[in-house]
Amino acid sequence: MFQKPASADHPIFDLLARRWSTRAFAERSVDRESLASLFEAARWAPSSGNGQPWSYLVATKDNAAEHQRMASILTPGNVWAHKAPVLAISVATLHRADKPNRTALHDLGLANENLVIQAISMGLAVHMMAGFHVDMARELFDIPANHDPHAMMAIGYPGDPESLPEDLRAKDLAPRQRKPIREFVFSGKFGQAAGLE
Amino acid sequence: MFQKPASADHPIFDLLARRWSTRAFAERSVDRESLASLFEAARWAPSSGNGQPWSYLVATKDNAAEHQRMASILTPGNVWAHKAPVLAISVATLHRADKPNRTALHDLGLANENLVIQAISMGLAVHMMAGFHVDMARELFDIPANHDPHAMMAIGYPGDPESLPEDLRAKDLAPRQRKPIREFVFSGKFGQAAGLE
Repeated sequence: MFQKPASADHPIFDLLARRWSTRAFAERSVDRESLASLFEAARWAPSSGNGQPWSYLVATKDNAAEHQRMASILTPGNVWAHKAPVLAISVATLHRADKPNRTALHDLGLANENLVIQAISMGLAVHMMAGFHVDMARELFDIPANHDPHAMMAIGYPGDPESLPEDLRAKDLAPRQRKPIREFVFSGKFGQAAGLE
Repeated sequence: MFQKPASADHPIFDLLARRWSTRAFAERSVDRESLASLFEAARWAPSSGNGQPWSYLVATKDNAAEHQRMASILTPGNVWAHKAPVLAISVATLHRADKPNRTALHDLGLANENLVIQAISMGLAVHMMAGFHVDMARELFDIPANHDPHAMMAIGYPGDPESLPEDLRAKDLAPRQRKPIREFVFSGKFGQAAGLE
């Protein structure tokens, strides 16, 4: 299996280093018990006041029409995701007890990352996507007001990047890059490097 | 060490099950190399278009005045966090190339959860907090407009819940609770259980 571990400057836990967002998925389907473990991992994420402001809509290729319906809301840049055997829309609950929940989107991110790490631990891959039609998602899946269909996910077993069209293959094979720690970890005041690198 | 593993209905990866938000921290300090690994883990989180819309302000008890300055922005409900040897403010960059970044808060959550899981893997504990004075944070730490001081963190080695005042001890010893999967994992339309539980 093709891997692209993080070129980390400091030791990090293996699963975190191995996580990356492939565009190549194998044909192999994901069984329901594995899917349940993904959402179980999301379930146990932390959230402000234990508000759990997350929910998910899921479509698998076991129901081809439903999978296609969900794939139809993706933007053209994410056409590769149509091959993933599982698609999901993660949804943030923006209000709590009729008041805006300031950390709803942040907490959805916590749950989503738990789901992603659970996936890696099972040999699965998840690629999150912002490129989809939010209004279409809301309409097609009857998502109520005060709920934000925020990030989609392509889920499946990782495939061979060589199987991708050339432009996507190039992206999948390119080295992973990140800002150095001194550019985002500060002390005393914003912008002043903490000297941790 | 007191532990409170998730009572998961489906198998989840050990570190995810063991993560929980203690209020009891040991006196033991966190060395700089361990701190660097926490932010390294955040660094390799995914983000929309690899925008990496996260940054952190850190204060450790090695610099008592600075630690106290950061502790001063916490609300009274989080007074227990003053004992944690490391405090941090996670900050979202809300704009990207002069345009609002729709997923900035979500992506900050992805990075924060990576940091938390890295911490668990090293025997550390992290408790995220929404209860702090955002405007004070902005002013005290010179956080520019278009940046949102979003969630604070107490970081350290876990302590003994028995050392906590009674009200906090009761919270720390209470069982962890979550909504069942059928209440937040849907298919076909929002609110319709996917049948994964």
